[in-house]
Amino acid sequence: MNTIDKLKRVRESFDSKNISAYIIPSSDPHLSEYLPDCWKFRAWASGFTGSAGTLVVGKNKAALWTDSRYFLQAEKELEGSTIELCRMGLPNTPSIEEWLTETLSANETVGFNGKLFAHAAAKLLVANLSKNGLKVVSDIDIIPAVWTNRPSAPNGKAFEHKLRYAGLTVSEKIAEIRKNLGKQHSDACIISALDDVAWTFNIRGNDVDYNPVVLSFGYISMDEAILFIDLDKLDDKLTTHLEEQGVELFDYNDSDKFISELPHNLTISIDETKLNHTLASLIPKEIKTADSISIPTKLKAVKNAVELENIKQSLVLDGIAMCNFLYWLETHVGKEKITELTIAEKLVEYRSEQEGFVSESFETIAGYKEHGAIVHYSATPETASEIESGGFLLVDSGAQYLQGTTDITRTIHLGTPNNEEKQDYTLVLKGMIQLSMIQFPLGTRGSQLDTLARMAMWNKGINFGHGTGHGIGAFLNVHEGPQSIRPSENPVTIEPGMVQSNEPGIYRAGKHGIRIENLIACKRTTENEFGTFLGFDTITLCPIDTKPIDVETLQADERNWLNSYHSMVYEKLAPFVKPEVKGWLKDRTRAI
Amino acid sequence: MNTIDKLKRVRESFDSKNISAYIIPSSDPHLSEYLPDCWKFRAWASGFTGSAGTLVVGKNKAALWTDSRYFLQAEKELEGSTIELCRMGLPNTPSIEEWLTETLSANETVGFNGKLFAHAAAKLLVANLSKNGLKVVSDIDIIPAVWTNRPSAPNGKAFEHKLRYAGLTVSEKIAEIRKNLGKQHSDACIISALDDVAWTFNIRGNDVDYNPVVLSFGYISMDEAILFIDLDKLDDKLTTHLEEQGVELFDYNDSDKFISELPHNLTISIDETKLNHTLASLIPKEIKTADSISIPTKLKAVKNAVELENIKQSLVLDGIAMCNFLYWLETHVGKEKITELTIAEKLVEYRSEQEGFVSESFETIAGYKEHGAIVHYSATPETASEIESGGFLLVDSGAQYLQGTTDITRTIHLGTPNNEEKQDYTLVLKGMIQLSMIQFPLGTRGSQLDTLARMAMWNKGINFGHGTGHGIGAFLNVHEGPQSIRPSENPVTIEPGMVQSNEPGIYRAGKHGIRIENLIACKRTTENEFGTFLGFDTITLCPIDTKPIDVETLQADERNWLNSYHSMVYEKLAPFVKPEVKGWLKDRTRAI
Repeated sequence: MNTIDKLKRVRESFDSKNISAYIIPSSDPHLSEYLPDCWKFRAWASGFTGSAGTLVVGKNKAALWTDSRYFLQAEKELEGSTIELCRMGLPNTPSIEEWLTETLSANETVGFNGKLFAHAAAKLLVANLSKNGLKVVSDIDIIPAVWTNRPSAPNGKAFEHKLRYAGLTVSEKIAEIRKNLGKQHSDACIISALDDVAWTFNIRGNDVDYNPVVLSFGYISMDEAILFIDLDKLDDKLTTHLEEQGVELFDYNDSDKFISELPHNLTISIDETKLNHTLASLIPKEIKTADSISIPTKLKAVKNAVELENIKQSLVLDGIAMCNFLYWLETHVGKEKITELTIAEKLVEYRSEQEGFVSESFETIAGYKEHGAIVHYSATPETASEIESGGFLLVDSGAQYLQGTTDITRTIHLGTPNNEEKQDYTLVLKGMIQLSMIQFPLGTRGSQLDTLARMAMWNKGINFGHGTGHGIGAFLNVHEGPQSIRPSENPVTIEPGMVQSNEPGIYRAGKHGIRIENLIACKRTTENEFGTFLGFDTITLCPIDTKPIDVETLQADERNWLNSYHSMVYEKLAPFVKPEVKGWLKDRTRAI
Repeated sequence: MNTIDKLKRVRESFDSKNISAYIIPSSDPHLSEYLPDCWKFRAWASGFTGSAGTLVVGKNKAALWTDSRYFLQAEKELEGSTIELCRMGLPNTPSIEEWLTETLSANETVGFNGKLFAHAAAKLLVANLSKNGLKVVSDIDIIPAVWTNRPSAPNGKAFEHKLRYAGLTVSEKIAEIRKNLGKQHSDACIISALDDVAWTFNIRGNDVDYNPVVLSFGYISMDEAILFIDLDKLDDKLTTHLEEQGVELFDYNDSDKFISELPHNLTISIDETKLNHTLASLIPKEIKTADSISIPTKLKAVKNAVELENIKQSLVLDGIAMCNFLYWLETHVGKEKITELTIAEKLVEYRSEQEGFVSESFETIAGYKEHGAIVHYSATPETASEIESGGFLLVDSGAQYLQGTTDITRTIHLGTPNNEEKQDYTLVLKGMIQLSMIQFPLGTRGSQLDTLARMAMWNKGINFGHGTGHGIGAFLNVHEGPQSIRPSENPVTIEPGMVQSNEPGIYRAGKHGIRIENLIACKRTTENEFGTFLGFDTITLCPIDTKPIDVETLQADERNWLNSYHSMVYEKLAPFVKPEVKGWLKDRTRAI
């Protein structure tokens, strides 16, 4: 069935639902960044396979909104589909609300499935459309009637995230959540993000690519702790374990009914950016809800000592794999055919040799020369460049180990860098080092620290369009909040125990992309009459290419930082790499 | 009459007003930072003369809230008054709402004069007190019944702020305001901050110490431009001039009636942080109001080319006065009795020699040795230290010239600085220079830039508790918004044409205070594939003491910046200082 036929099926569902348009987002009932196949309805219906995009189907027109990462891909994939491409961020692109208002007549009805929208976003959408004279129905699910051959829900087993990795038992985490509920004067919270549930109940699974999570919801009150999950995913041992920890197990599909029957005298904490609209709407009206950042989101961002030790161990493993990979690359490039796709394969090969390896943590970005300038570049057999001697190769990759989740970017030069390449590389390096070195007072927000990663390049009239740092899970999602290090305001302060990325970049269209990324763990450094101060430990272990550095423009402290980083990398990795790689490592970590 | 008698008079007014407590803030109907004498009621009623404080009088108890700047002064001035001192910012200090709830019984009534509260603040106060079961009446003015010998309203003449200083005529400014009203889909705006009114109508006056403003309100709609002012303050020439510019002149006291009779079909822009509660409440309920930053506040923050040229001229004048002062100080200290109070006198003396000088722009802060660590120190005959050879002297002062408003801090060492003094001084200097040198993308907020002024001291475990930069008027108030450079979030971005201070500091209680302050004007620097970039011109002209600098710890670019700044200072000031000062200036601006 081609896209035109699929749109026809979508439209055939309109009459019985009394709607004139339908919105299909890229989402699942947990508002996940990565979706299980059974929720990739937007991709199915539109033919556009990028990770971010919203399809809106009207009676005679259809349009798809996506961001600049996907303009080229969407153009190509939407060709002949009759779907108009709405390029987000360009000045003349209408919003979805504007497009619907333009396309529909007053009093016509727009439908969507509230399960696929965050409560906050859905409320805003409904308000905007209503203001424009349209009606909205938010509980329409057309998937059963429309999507032929829908993949079945993932049915892999869940497994216990062992205490030696988690550091806290399930019952300890539940107690911590209850303490926070008390502080918020709430009686209970609904946990809907998959990584929040996985963290709370110390379970992991493989329902979603790259993220070791299980489709599930949680509910914690002062006397109940409920996990809603396909009970077939739990073996007897895990069932017993969870029950011993005070957890009641309900079927995944019971969550709706449970929530709609909650006692009316409760005050419930919900995170309106994480709870889907349908579930939020099922909460009885008598119940008081308090909107705030999900408690497990806040708690899991601050890694405990056991998690931190394991994360550091996972970074030793990942560092070994990276060294083996880089050694292989440098010794084979120009001698055999290596493409951007080979890079990803080789990385998986070396990582899977490490104990505790589970999977990649996201799709490897390997961008050679001008492909490096495409920030979320994803090589395909058609586009994959052959890696030769010369030019920058940007490799952003990561893995899931039982011990922790990794995310690392190295950009290496395969020939003789020119002046612009050296300048850009050194500016990125300076930004990364300045953020690594900073000490800052307790109470500092990420947007205040983001400047450190940019100031050197700003002074040369250069900037980059993505954030500098995101939180990362402990054997969980590679992107997690609530903290961030980016220019835009985020009131969350950076706290001891938080682990995040440090990844400035410079991208010159048609030329090259440079990004250097380490993970940094926040720690307490000193306390005195001026207050409490924090700093970062850089915990990623892998040589940083020194060839493209314009050493003259490094400050003494930046140079010292790099040399001492490299000396630590050698010390921690040398005992574990293959004999032939050891000499290479010695050379690549030599002081400059 | 002592304070106990005054409180008795306050309480005697309670019965006829049916209230059990009354709140007296430090404010006027324009919510000014500096008050005309006739509005210094809180100081009269409490005996506490500090600039910031709120008195709350109950039937049997009274309390005064003030911040840490004034703890010592308030303790002393409140002695024997029966008024309890509530030290703001300390953990066990109740809020005003908490104190009232504790002191009063449910259903008792709290009164205040809505004219002295911003609309936003009053709404919050009423909501909080009501939530706690208290009644609130917001239109009670007890001043006429209570305040004996109240000073009369200021009656100095207003004068025109000439086009050669203002750069835009009144009618051009009105047109600009109307253009902004159009963008906001508003029909009119009420202008209530005195500096906003002065800017809009190109008038200045002397109703308030330090600020060249006139008690007045403004109202601009698409077809009206009204100035509410005591008409006796306008001479015939100014009256004619304003009328020719399309301004209607109404008596100051007509504003209430005018606002209460506004046509009901309007949408009006008001700034709820600047419009007083009583006036806001007079707006007919049928009128739509839109809360946003006052349009003149936004417009006047971006200086036009003529204003900028004049401001730079005022800084040449101020620089000459500062050089004459510093030369006098260095050549007389240790030889005659000089106290912290002498400093202020001498500064006024030298400044008043300059053409266009009008007044000081705030009360000079001259803090010698440990007094420098008291951030808003104000010397009195009892506390004033004698300045001797040795130790740091911090001098923060400024002036109003017809050409512009100045604000400068220099900290000089009068002996041989020790290591800690050198370290602290150099860290402050580094922060000031880093912010001066930065280039940054259009769209950057002050909180992102604030980090530059702090990073060097943060790395040594040091911080300061005030903001790094505030906007400054063009022959107007020394503090103006809407931009700021400080750690806390302010969504306003720094735009070309904005002039602000750059004033990091380090304060060691009992030892010293160090602050170095220049004014910096934002300008466009470059535009390229990465966007538009901005930077700062440092426009304050005065040597920075090089003696306490630990030169070894300056980076090359910091040292270059300082040397090139000093060379500019010499070039611009040398032609104008007295012959004996010229040699001193040459020496003090010598490259390090």
